[in-house]
Amino acid sequence: MHDFRSDNVAGAAPQVMTALTASSSGTASPYGNDPWTARVTERLCAIFETGVAVFPVATGTAANSLALSALVPPYGAVLCHDEAHIAIDECGAPEFFTGGAKLVPLAGEHGKLTLDSVSRHIARAGVGVVHRVQPAALSLTQATEAGTVYTPAEVEALVETAHSNGMAVHMDGARFANAIARLGCAPADVTWRAGVDVLTLGGTKGGCLAAEAVVFFNPAMAEDFGFGRKRGGHLVSKMRFLSAQLDAWLEDGLWLRLAAHANAMADRLAAGLTALPGVELAHPVEANELFVRLPAAYAEALEGAGYGFYRWDDGTARFVTAFDTPAAAVDGLLGILRRLQEKA
Amino acid sequence: MHDFRSDNVAGAAPQVMTALTASSSGTASPYGNDPWTARVTERLCAIFETGVAVFPVATGTAANSLALSALVPPYGAVLCHDEAHIAIDECGAPEFFTGGAKLVPLAGEHGKLTLDSVSRHIARAGVGVVHRVQPAALSLTQATEAGTVYTPAEVEALVETAHSNGMAVHMDGARFANAIARLGCAPADVTWRAGVDVLTLGGTKGGCLAAEAVVFFNPAMAEDFGFGRKRGGHLVSKMRFLSAQLDAWLEDGLWLRLAAHANAMADRLAAGLTALPGVELAHPVEANELFVRLPAAYAEALEGAGYGFYRWDDGTARFVTAFDTPAAAVDGLLGILRRLQEKA
Amino acid sequence: MHDFRSDNVAGAAPQVMTALTASSSGTASPYGNDPWTARVTERLCAIFETGVAVFPVATGTAANSLALSALVPPYGAVLCHDEAHIAIDECGAPEFFTGGAKLVPLAGEHGKLTLDSVSRHIARAGVGVVHRVQPAALSLTQATEAGTVYTPAEVEALVETAHSNGMAVHMDGARFANAIARLGCAPADVTWRAGVDVLTLGGTKGGCLAAEAVVFFNPAMAEDFGFGRKRGGHLVSKMRFLSAQLDAWLEDGLWLRLAAHANAMADRLAAGLTALPGVELAHPVEANELFVRLPAAYAEALEGAGYGFYRWDDGTARFVTAFDTPAAAVDGLLGILRRLQEKA
Amino acid sequence: MHDFRSDNVAGAAPQVMTALTASSSGTASPYGNDPWTARVTERLCAIFETGVAVFPVATGTAANSLALSALVPPYGAVLCHDEAHIAIDECGAPEFFTGGAKLVPLAGEHGKLTLDSVSRHIARAGVGVVHRVQPAALSLTQATEAGTVYTPAEVEALVETAHSNGMAVHMDGARFANAIARLGCAPADVTWRAGVDVLTLGGTKGGCLAAEAVVFFNPAMAEDFGFGRKRGGHLVSKMRFLSAQLDAWLEDGLWLRLAAHANAMADRLAAGLTALPGVELAHPVEANELFVRLPAAYAEALEGAGYGFYRWDDGTARFVTAFDTPAAAVDGLLGILRRLQEKA
Repeated sequence: MHDFRSDNVAGAAPQVMTALTASSSGTASPYGNDPWTARVTERLCAIFETGVAVFPVATGTAANSLALSALVPPYGAVLCHDEAHIAIDECGAPEFFTGGAKLVPLAGEHGKLTLDSVSRHIARAGVGVVHRVQPAALSLTQATEAGTVYTPAEVEALVETAHSNGMAVHMDGARFANAIARLGCAPADVTWRAGVDVLTLGGTKGGCLAAEAVVFFNPAMAEDFGFGRKRGGHLVSKMRFLSAQLDAWLEDGLWLRLAAHANAMADRLAAGLTALPGVELAHPVEANELFVRLPAAYAEALEGAGYGFYRWDDGTARFVTAFDTPAAAVDGLLGILRRLQEKA
Repeated sequence: MHDFRSDNVAGAAPQVMTALTASSSGTASPYGNDPWTARVTERLCAIFETGVAVFPVATGTAANSLALSALVPPYGAVLCHDEAHIAIDECGAPEFFTGGAKLVPLAGEHGKLTLDSVSRHIARAGVGVVHRVQPAALSLTQATEAGTVYTPAEVEALVETAHSNGMAVHMDGARFANAIARLGCAPADVTWRAGVDVLTLGGTKGGCLAAEAVVFFNPAMAEDFGFGRKRGGHLVSKMRFLSAQLDAWLEDGLWLRLAAHANAMADRLAAGLTALPGVELAHPVEANELFVRLPAAYAEALEGAGYGFYRWDDGTARFVTAFDTPAAAVDGLLGILRRLQEKA
Repeated sequence: MHDFRSDNVAGAAPQVMTALTASSSGTASPYGNDPWTARVTERLCAIFETGVAVFPVATGTAANSLALSALVPPYGAVLCHDEAHIAIDECGAPEFFTGGAKLVPLAGEHGKLTLDSVSRHIARAGVGVVHRVQPAALSLTQATEAGTVYTPAEVEALVETAHSNGMAVHMDGARFANAIARLGCAPADVTWRAGVDVLTLGGTKGGCLAAEAVVFFNPAMAEDFGFGRKRGGHLVSKMRFLSAQLDAWLEDGLWLRLAAHANAMADRLAAGLTALPGVELAHPVEANELFVRLPAAYAEALEGAGYGFYRWDDGTARFVTAFDTPAAAVDGLLGILRRLQEKA
Repeated sequence: MHDFRSDNVAGAAPQVMTALTASSSGTASPYGNDPWTARVTERLCAIFETGVAVFPVATGTAANSLALSALVPPYGAVLCHDEAHIAIDECGAPEFFTGGAKLVPLAGEHGKLTLDSVSRHIARAGVGVVHRVQPAALSLTQATEAGTVYTPAEVEALVETAHSNGMAVHMDGARFANAIARLGCAPADVTWRAGVDVLTLGGTKGGCLAAEAVVFFNPAMAEDFGFGRKRGGHLVSKMRFLSAQLDAWLEDGLWLRLAAHANAMADRLAAGLTALPGVELAHPVEANELFVRLPAAYAEALEGAGYGFYRWDDGTARFVTAFDTPAAAVDGLLGILRRLQEKA
């Protein structure tokens, strides 16, 4: 048995924990004036092949909301997918941090926004009309909530539409590592080279304890960010303990190796499941999440055997793999279903 | 040499780090539905000898601001000392989380509010007058920003004034452990038995990496707190990593032993300093902070020797000891000054 | 020629202006402690046949937003029609006044919410789940943005669903007078007797200069309202000048007579237009707004003749009649189209 | 007998009411696209001898709060006198509109800020330090809450300090007309020529029903203002009714003649009162407000005779004259006190 409910049920990668422990010895300047934080910025400059401004925080909700608050005025609108985490799963945190901006949910298959829905919304949004909230930012999730991945070309096209309408672009990268591990492209290709202005880079789901980084590709946009982070209670005093996590996670490509493992486990699970009769994927598996239409008998058997996953009323189930999901756990799950099928 | 600038330059206590590392193995339910979080609540119920509602967060600013947001409406006023951290050092976080409530700074010697200044403000505040913000909460800092400590009787008298005017009472306990270690009283005596409604209990300065707990003595007041914490981006997904810190820190009185050590080092430093001619304390030393009027030559000698501390324009210096400050560091500092004095 | 763009292009009713002028003589207590304001409350208690708490403000946006802020917490959701004024035409004012609550737009024909869409949303909203905004209020527009009217039974059914899910109910009554004039029911029947908690009663569009009243049927809900109104800058110092408008408008049924005239002019226009070939109504005409599919030649002829109205890309046009629309203006407009049709 | 409690107990000037009535005939474009609003801007450009951006609103609290929200970020501080209306009498409206900025009250005799207190605060404010709110605006009240007036040179010196520290300058001109009528200078001299960035020009107290204008001397600062005004519920739909008031009030110097009368009545009252034994002024009388130390017997006699004014615990009384205060009312009041004195 294993818990596939989410990648946040996992612990931390041993390399991260070791580095964290090591970082504790001796005194260090608080609030980010420490060597670990400096190193995280250096690493991200190298990884993204450009100068970036980096702000570590402890949660993805904070990272997303603070990033958006740097992009939109209170009378602004954030266009996002209608299943986006910022729209659905953050209890209105973006509204809180932006002073009440409006999130505009747009439809799109497999968790991805389309040029068409974005363009159509902007055309009817009443730009410049004082009675209407003003489109100010586009937020893309990479990998998406449906476990799919935008290609660099897709990002570029969406960004172009946003920028040409005076909007900034945010990327929610809670599972950015999984997307890059899948795409095999340079991190820059799907971010600033495609025009993205700010990325919230998720470390927690990928093997940290609680560490995310807000990464500004345009450091000028980050001018006020420090005040917003402090004011939101997200400036950690012993910052080394956040940064040491990210430092270890980003060292020598560990973040991508961990993500590649999670992706591989998702592929292994997808291959096994779709080989079974009556099972089909609701979305392509491109990162570490699977959305599966599963016969009730299968779901019940797995639950009976103690496997964790989410079931929705419509017969869909979600499985999420993580940086440390054992192949044996995947195989064990599949074995149960295969035996059940053989009996039938 | 040693860094006495603040207790947030210290690392984490080894017991805390060990427990943190141990907590990482295996999967665990996210968002606080884990055994560590449950145990923290149990420990705090035992420590405070009553049922409490507990919400771990990562920073003191978040803990204070979220706690206040549960006590005051946007048109409310929070009465506090004019040197209170919430008023001076949180970049307006309480205003942000309360939707724009007003912090009313009141004077008081040695960092402590007086019955008189609180009563006088309330009398002139225009209670019930729609043009005026309404006194809604009193915030006490224990230990204070001046390194002093309120006695249970002092707290009780202030609370009575607040309660009899319909105000709730918050205690900023960033250094609550130091206060209890000094007072030697039951934690309950200076909180709920004296009428305090909510405490923000600081673990970070006391030996954790980044862990504070908002403790409601009246759980009914906490009804909406979960939503506010999430909305503020302060609901950590892998919550076990916050709670495991607090769990270890609170186990078997470790928190008080660590605080007692910090206090003892402060006493040792105070005794040594005040024995020197020309040095005097600006405030009584009752916790782990010293505010000292120090001849410039002394300050310069210490800086030259690489000791860290804060100096203000008025000739005052601040030294802060921590759970792990070595006695040798204190003695080393004193030795420099003694030698300087002998030469003079 | 005449301006049918909106009912806010009209001036004020002569009776209102006369009363306003009369109210100016002599001194009067400010901030609502004046006889006019007291009389407005009396009149509304009589009109609604129950005790109500009344707060005059100058704009509909303020009335709606302040009313909603009394019903929902910052982490709350307001369910409303996807064409509701609060969702589309107030530049995020409800978000501002509620501290960032979320407006959830729901579809429904002819501007009306349906039991089904409301129930379905609530069922999937994640009630009690800390990651999700919590359904806290339902907002109904009476008459709707599509110029239609909810019956008392329709309101009652929607309210029942809301209340049984712990939500409060707001009615945006910018054109409440038009709805009552059409329904011929008691104002109470479609408000508190059907369970509505708070009504924003619009006077401006109905013949005042700038006067709306927030009417609480449950005065306990209004406890903090005075502070919110002041804080929003909506407590007018010389309040008599707001209240004198409402006082005259509500006297002896003037508000309903003015609304009945506007409705009659809408009917007259609808009858004339639908008699023409190629013209059809997009929505039933139940108040003082017409949404019409109009051949382009007709629209151009009217524009050429100087008639004001709105045209949308989809070939629909909006005409709004007011308390003072002359029958001759309606007939003149129709005459142009009839002559055009005869020529064709 | 007469009501001297405030200048908001007065009605409206007849010229204003006549113009308002006249403005009601015919249709007009809503939301400020009307001739009256255009004319108000023209008049203010002429009066201030420069191009200004003008935004009429209905209340002074709205005008002040919206103006400040254009000048300061949520983490900003507004320096103001500790008796300023924005700090004391607006129930936290500036905090609400700025997203939680902090008002920093500074002391100063006779209602006036001093260079010294402003400079000293800035020096200790922690400019650039992320833990501290950042001084972002200076707000001056002209005429002050104490009934005194800043000279152009005084304004200029304060502005210079503000600007040289990167702060913008707001002038609360609820009684600006009274100040100009007293100073006899050009309105420009005490505003933009002295460096003021934005003025909230009060019409209500000076003879309008409910009309204030936010006047930006630097129109670039006003770029987002329209959205903020709408979002605050302060964009009046039938705007002509706001603007017609201001249009008449500003025509041919009426505003200054009305203010001069109020000032003259204040002088007359001050002269009469100070001629009596035991009466002395708490502040110089430079506008239309008197703060007087008055023997209790005098105060009681006036109350007994039905005169309205405010009394404070410290024996001070406030009398306010208005644009329509009859000389006979002043003389009647003085007559009572003279007779009382003669008897004694």
